[in-house]
Amino acid sequence: MKKKAKYNVAVVGVGVVGIEMLRVLRQRNFPVAEVRVLARSARDIDVDGQKYSVKPIAPESFDGIDIALFAGTEGEKGAAVTFAHEAVKRGAVVIDNGADFRMDKNVPLVVPEVNGVDVKKHKGIIANPNCSTIQVILPLAVLDKLFCLKKLIVSTYQSVSGSGHQGIVTLLNQRKGKNDKGIYPHIIDLNVIPQIGGFLDSGYCQEEEKMHFESRKILNKRELLVSATTVRVPVIYGHSVSVYAEFENEVDIPKAEEALQNSPRVVYYPNTYITPLDLGSSNDSHICRLRLGTDEKSLTFWNVGHNVRLGAAANAVNILITHIQYSGML
Amino acid sequence: MKKKAKYNVAVVGVGVVGIEMLRVLRQRNFPVAEVRVLARSARDIDVDGQKYSVKPIAPESFDGIDIALFAGTEGEKGAAVTFAHEAVKRGAVVIDNGADFRMDKNVPLVVPEVNGVDVKKHKGIIANPNCSTIQVILPLAVLDKLFCLKKLIVSTYQSVSGSGHQGIVTLLNQRKGKNDKGIYPHIIDLNVIPQIGGFLDSGYCQEEEKMHFESRKILNKRELLVSATTVRVPVIYGHSVSVYAEFENEVDIPKAEEALQNSPRVVYYPNTYITPLDLGSSNDSHICRLRLGTDEKSLTFWNVGHNVRLGAAANAVNILITHIQYSGML
Repeated sequence: MKKKAKYNVAVVGVGVVGIEMLRVLRQRNFPVAEVRVLARSARDIDVDGQKYSVKPIAPESFDGIDIALFAGTEGEKGAAVTFAHEAVKRGAVVIDNGADFRMDKNVPLVVPEVNGVDVKKHKGIIANPNCSTIQVILPLAVLDKLFCLKKLIVSTYQSVSGSGHQGIVTLLNQRKGKNDKGIYPHIIDLNVIPQIGGFLDSGYCQEEEKMHFESRKILNKRELLVSATTVRVPVIYGHSVSVYAEFENEVDIPKAEEALQNSPRVVYYPNTYITPLDLGSSNDSHICRLRLGTDEKSLTFWNVGHNVRLGAAANAVNILITHIQYSGML
Repeated sequence: MKKKAKYNVAVVGVGVVGIEMLRVLRQRNFPVAEVRVLARSARDIDVDGQKYSVKPIAPESFDGIDIALFAGTEGEKGAAVTFAHEAVKRGAVVIDNGADFRMDKNVPLVVPEVNGVDVKKHKGIIANPNCSTIQVILPLAVLDKLFCLKKLIVSTYQSVSGSGHQGIVTLLNQRKGKNDKGIYPHIIDLNVIPQIGGFLDSGYCQEEEKMHFESRKILNKRELLVSATTVRVPVIYGHSVSVYAEFENEVDIPKAEEALQNSPRVVYYPNTYITPLDLGSSNDSHICRLRLGTDEKSLTFWNVGHNVRLGAAANAVNILITHIQYSGML
C-alpha cells in the first residue's frame, strides 16, 4: 500500500460497536478521504449529527478501500467470515473486532501499547482482542515487564452493551417491568449471570477461554496460567474486572505504581477508585485498589474500561493508526 | 442452663436481619416459650401476619431470657457492644450476627455444619460469621477435607440488602430516578462498587478482611492464604462469589461433586447454574460451575447464597439449635 495523503476506510456493521467506530474515527486526528459504511441492508443513519448512507455489503464494496474495520458480532459468526478475505483480495487491510480470526496463527492479535509491532506480521487481517482482555492486558503487560507474570485469576463484571444493542434493550425493558426474557438465559435486571457465551468441555464458557488464550497470545507467554470467571451484570456501559496476578519475582508496589502512572492508555488511581458510571467515553484502562495479593509475589487490583470504546472501537482504530505508522503511510 | 420444655428467646433488632430471624424461628421446629423482640424504641410490628410488640432495649430486658439473638448492624457498632455482656450476666447465651466479637479469641465463630462443636467453648457469646464467609466456607470445608485447602482468591457480587434496609431503599429510589445519593459512596443503580466497609492500611476493605480472617478462624487454618475483593452490585437479595481455591493435593472433580452432593446445607448443580433471583428463601449454599482452576491442584466455582437467610438469620438460628443440642437441652 502506497503512502497517500488520505485513506479510504470501510466500517462494516452499524450496531453498538460500528457506530462507536464512526465516532472514534471522527475524534482521532487521522486523514480519512472516504468513510464507507457497510451493513446487511441500505439505510441512512445519523451519528451525533453526522449523516452516513449505509450501503449493502458485497465483495465489490471493498474496491478502492485501504483499511476495513469490521465491527464483529457477539455470539454468532461475523460478517468478517464471509467478507474479510474478499476485502483483502481487493487490496484492503482488515481489522476485525470479532472473534473469528483471533486465534489464527496467521493473524496478529493486537493491543498497540502492548504488542503494536505485531501488526507488521499481518497477512491482510489483524484481530482486535476481546473487550475484557484488552482492558486487563494493558496494566498486566506493564506489571509483567517489572515482575514477570506467571498466573492470572480474573472475575469480571461485564455490562450488557457487551452483547450489543439487544443487551441494552433487554435490560432497559426488564427495568420497565416488561415481561421480556430478552437475549440472556436468565433475567439480568437486579441479577448477575455467571455465563458469557456457550459452555465448553472444560467447564469454562467461551468468554472465559477468550481471556485465557488471548492473554497468552498478546503477551506471547504460552505458559501463562489463567482461570477466568466472566459474569454479566446490570450495567449499561463499562466492564469491571477483579484481577489477582502472581509473578516470578517479588513485587514492589511503589515501582508498580510509578510504571502504571507512566504507561500510555493506562490511568492509575493511587488513593481512590473508579466505577463504570464514572467512565464517560474514556479510551483508557483504569486501574485502582492496587494491593498485595496473598504474598510478596502477588498483586490484586480493580480494573474498569469502556467495553465499546477501549474494548472495541478505540482499540480497533488504534490498530489502524499503528498499522499505517508501521507501513510508513503516516 | 437446665433442660427446659421450651425456651425464652430474645431477638434484638428489627431491621432486615431481625425480621428474618423472627421468620426463621417460626419456620424451624424449635420449642419457643416466648419471643421477646427488642429494639431502640417501642413499636408494634407485623411479620407475615404475626404481630410482635417491640420493647425498648435495656439491661433488664434480658431477665429470664435463655438465648438472645442479636441481629447486628452493618458498618457501625451493634447493640451487642452495649448489651451482650448484660444479657450474659443475666444468664442468657448471646448469638451475635454483628462483627464486634467475631475475632475475639474467647468467642467461637460458628457455621454449625463446619465447626458446630466450637459452640461448646463459648463463654456466653457465640458469633455468627460475615454473610459472604458463611456461604463460601460451607463448600470450602468439604473440599478442604478432601484435598487440603491452601490458598483462596474470591471476588464477590453482593446485594444491597447486605447493607440492611437502607441499602434496599437506596437502590429502589435510584431506580425510580430519584436524585438520592443514598448510603453508598457511588450510585449503585446500573453500577458496581468495589468497596464494602472502610479501607485498611493493607489496601483491603473491611469486608475483604472479614472474609480473610474469619475463614481462617472457622476452618482453624492459620496459614490459609486469602485475597478477597468484595463488590456491591445492584441486586436486592443474594450474594454471589467467584471462588478460586488451591489445595495441597491434586483435586478430583467427581470426588468433589460426590462430597458436595452429600453435604448438609450445600446444594450442588452438576450441569447448570443458579443466579441470585432463583434463590427464593433458601437457607443453603448453592455451588455450581465447578471446574479445574489453573492446574490439577486448583478448583474454580460459582457460589450463591441468600445473605439475609443463610448469611445471617438462618445460620444464627442454626447456631442456637446446635448450642441447645450440645447443652443436652433438646
